[in-house]
Amino acid sequence: MSSDPKWIIGVDIGGTNLVVGLVPFEGGREVVALQKRPTESSRGANAVVERVIAMIRECLAEAGVAHDSGDVAGIGIGSPGPLDRATGIVLDTPNLGWRNFPVRDLVATPFGLPATLDNDANCATYGEWWQGAGRQVPRLVGLTLGTGIGGGIVLDGELYHGASDDAAEIGHMCVDLTGRRCACGRYGCLEAYASGPNITARAVEGLEAGARSALTDMTGGDLSQISAATVYEAAVAGDRYASEVLGETARILGAGIGNLINLLNPDVVVIAGGVTRAGDQLFDPLRIAVRRRAFPSALDVCRIVPADLPDTAGVVGAAGVFKRTTLGRV
Amino acid sequence: MSSDPKWIIGVDIGGTNLVVGLVPFEGGREVVALQKRPTESSRGANAVVERVIAMIRECLAEAGVAHDSGDVAGIGIGSPGPLDRATGIVLDTPNLGWRNFPVRDLVATPFGLPATLDNDANCATYGEWWQGAGRQVPRLVGLTLGTGIGGGIVLDGELYHGASDDAAEIGHMCVDLTGRRCACGRYGCLEAYASGPNITARAVEGLEAGARSALTDMTGGDLSQISAATVYEAAVAGDRYASEVLGETARILGAGIGNLINLLNPDVVVIAGGVTRAGDQLFDPLRIAVRRRAFPSALDVCRIVPADLPDTAGVVGAAGVFKRTTLGRV
Repeated sequence: MSSDPKWIIGVDIGGTNLVVGLVPFEGGREVVALQKRPTESSRGANAVVERVIAMIRECLAEAGVAHDSGDVAGIGIGSPGPLDRATGIVLDTPNLGWRNFPVRDLVATPFGLPATLDNDANCATYGEWWQGAGRQVPRLVGLTLGTGIGGGIVLDGELYHGASDDAAEIGHMCVDLTGRRCACGRYGCLEAYASGPNITARAVEGLEAGARSALTDMTGGDLSQISAATVYEAAVAGDRYASEVLGETARILGAGIGNLINLLNPDVVVIAGGVTRAGDQLFDPLRIAVRRRAFPSALDVCRIVPADLPDTAGVVGAAGVFKRTTLGRV
Repeated sequence: MSSDPKWIIGVDIGGTNLVVGLVPFEGGREVVALQKRPTESSRGANAVVERVIAMIRECLAEAGVAHDSGDVAGIGIGSPGPLDRATGIVLDTPNLGWRNFPVRDLVATPFGLPATLDNDANCATYGEWWQGAGRQVPRLVGLTLGTGIGGGIVLDGELYHGASDDAAEIGHMCVDLTGRRCACGRYGCLEAYASGPNITARAVEGLEAGARSALTDMTGGDLSQISAATVYEAAVAGDRYASEVLGETARILGAGIGNLINLLNPDVVVIAGGVTRAGDQLFDPLRIAVRRRAFPSALDVCRIVPADLPDTAGVVGAAGVFKRTTLGRV
């Protein structure tokens, strides 16, 4: 690597989309030559890798940067896990269908660049810590509420990985011992209530049980058309039932975030993912719910905020992880 | 301080007892000249401090060590919190009745020795990390199940305190959103089920509702005689109802410990306090309950063990905190 590289290539491999971009080596929230394309994991693991490599080439071409010019320090990759950071291998990822797949080296080898691999929720959290809503605070917890619920913990500028890279599984925190069954098979996990599909499922269950709501009209009575986004829209438009569904979401999330605050006493909790589009419809009752659970002195020093880099946290964070891992600083 | 001190004075201030002893500066689990006396906090804060000072004098005399000989590095004090570590002041401790009480300096000044203050659950956890059941593992979580439930987290050899010294409030983790009301006013906290008084209360509630158990005979029908210890005894003797009460305790604790494992992915979870006297009656169902909640890969690398220094963890840990704080190592 040149003595003064200008860029790190950030790669965010998701179940739905691939995102690639150039992240300023010295830090910055503007990602250059951002590429976004569907993952289409059904085409196979190698096809995904080929697409990522093509996107990196397009990104470099668009920015007018040669991969071997010394301007590029390396490649930071985020992927669904579980994975082995040391070897750069994705161990077993149901929603991509990968098993023991050496994605890090397959992506990096054509460019002759060093690379790192970490999980997607960790990278998104690290991006929000490096350049986003929790800029370089000493203790940050991140939650991403999407198809599932992912989490990350940043302490003293570094992702906290735990003894076997399994830390920060916030989505499967139990807050309701005998509550809803989660896709993981356990009961009462946060994810069983507050992921996008579970917000939808809870809304539909109530309507099927006879609840009256504008949601029925909005979807022409076809409940399969309801999504978490429809629920937010209805709540914003004043629908009482939709607000109740979001209120329950907030109560459950509030218990989980209260637990995180009582346990980790962080400076910032960042909440990312599609669910945050509900805005105050979610955050207002959420802050009330957290206040009922967290210790006042711990809550007083903690900001609970929406993510600041909704589209690029994964790419920025993957690049940040690369820099931190190879240099020991960002 | 001399260039090669031999001892640190450890002080463990509890709601029921005061414990003082000499802890080897270079580490060791044998506490020398251990003193234990009742706290009698009703006699007032100053009377407690006088008793601690007298106990330190007795301890030094018994060991034949002069406080100003250079053999004593300083004094580590553990006390119920919340407290301010920087100033050594206990802020507000309901079960001692102390408010803004500068206990650190009041204890240390007569001896002209440096001193540190940290909370009792943190000190007990640090003792188990330094010399006990989780000797110097990278990541340790401690729970003390007593009158309340306290907790501590040790990462990279250091207690994790969080942004406002409020971290590791494990006893008030919510695992049952609409569950039992806790003394703290919240619902479904671990402490509301698994502290000594709450194990007792749950046992008595069932008996009052008509459950049949040897507990009734053991106490001559006077349910006010039942304690958590009676419940363990009955369970060990084969009483089915008492085993059920312990089983529910294990299920709740298992959910909480599962959450801790999924979140912090520690190497060791140490469980201390009177409740551990139940032995396998508690630990067997507890390990099963944790297995139902924790991710297998995180559980595989984690030992869940009873405390190894039941009587001295607080004193050893307070001394360890002193050494770590003043030297940056133990």
